[in-house]
Amino acid sequence: MSKEIPQPAFHKDPKGLLPAIAQDWQTNEVLMLAYINQESWNETLQSGKATYWSRSRQELWKKGDTSGNYQIIKEILIDCDCDTIIFKVEQIGDAACHVGYRSCFFREISNNKCEIVSEKIFDPNEVYKKKG
Amino acid sequence: MSKEIPQPAFHKDPKGLLPAIAQDWQTNEVLMLAYINQESWNETLQSGKATYWSRSRQELWKKGDTSGNYQIIKEILIDCDCDTIIFKVEQIGDAACHVGYRSCFFREISNNKCEIVSEKIFDPNEVYKKKG
Repeated sequence: MSKEIPQPAFHKDPKGLLPAIAQDWQTNEVLMLAYINQESWNETLQSGKATYWSRSRQELWKKGDTSGNYQIIKEILIDCDCDTIIFKVEQIGDAACHVGYRSCFFREISNNKCEIVSEKIFDPNEVYKKKG
Repeated sequence: MSKEIPQPAFHKDPKGLLPAIAQDWQTNEVLMLAYINQESWNETLQSGKATYWSRSRQELWKKGDTSGNYQIIKEILIDCDCDTIIFKVEQIGDAACHVGYRSCFFREISNNKCEIVSEKIFDPNEVYKKKG
């Protein structure tokens, strides 16, 4: 069934930001959540690579430009209220998290304890020292 | 490996709200994204059922109280920055979305078209007419 194309409702947020979930397109593992604005959205559609808005740096964040760990867009899903996006991606370099894990969600909280449940792929000191 | 238990950083947001992703604990399908505050978090841990904060109604939202579609907590994951949570859940009633689909992310956007990609489980007019 084909429908009119829904647009993300950036106007709903005072800063024009909506959450975008990056999910592995094959395993459905959630890799990270970051925020997008209209500019990130346009850039993502145009480039075919996940592009976010960095709230800490207040700038367009072309994920992978520093680390090489680009996220190639395979599918885009939008939710019922048009205020959350899923990018189903191929994660280049096998790691999405700046701490070096495959997923930013590498810690499970259960029974008053915390366990590391994701694989450490790289040493962030090695990858990010190139910058600056 | 066991670590000190990280706490969600509700103080990071001016309204004390953080996004929580509900994910099917078996298939990893993302069912919905909603927001939690400290009260929702405490209630979720205590009750074992996903509890959110409704931004539209400005009240504690015990998911399932109206529809019966509770989300039983199976695992909780927290991200590197402690500002996003994943609830891995068993979705009672097979549907998370108030429009009647299994997932709120029932629309895929691709090649300038939009396709319905999730299963419609119930008729919202039937389920929600009970209320009010």
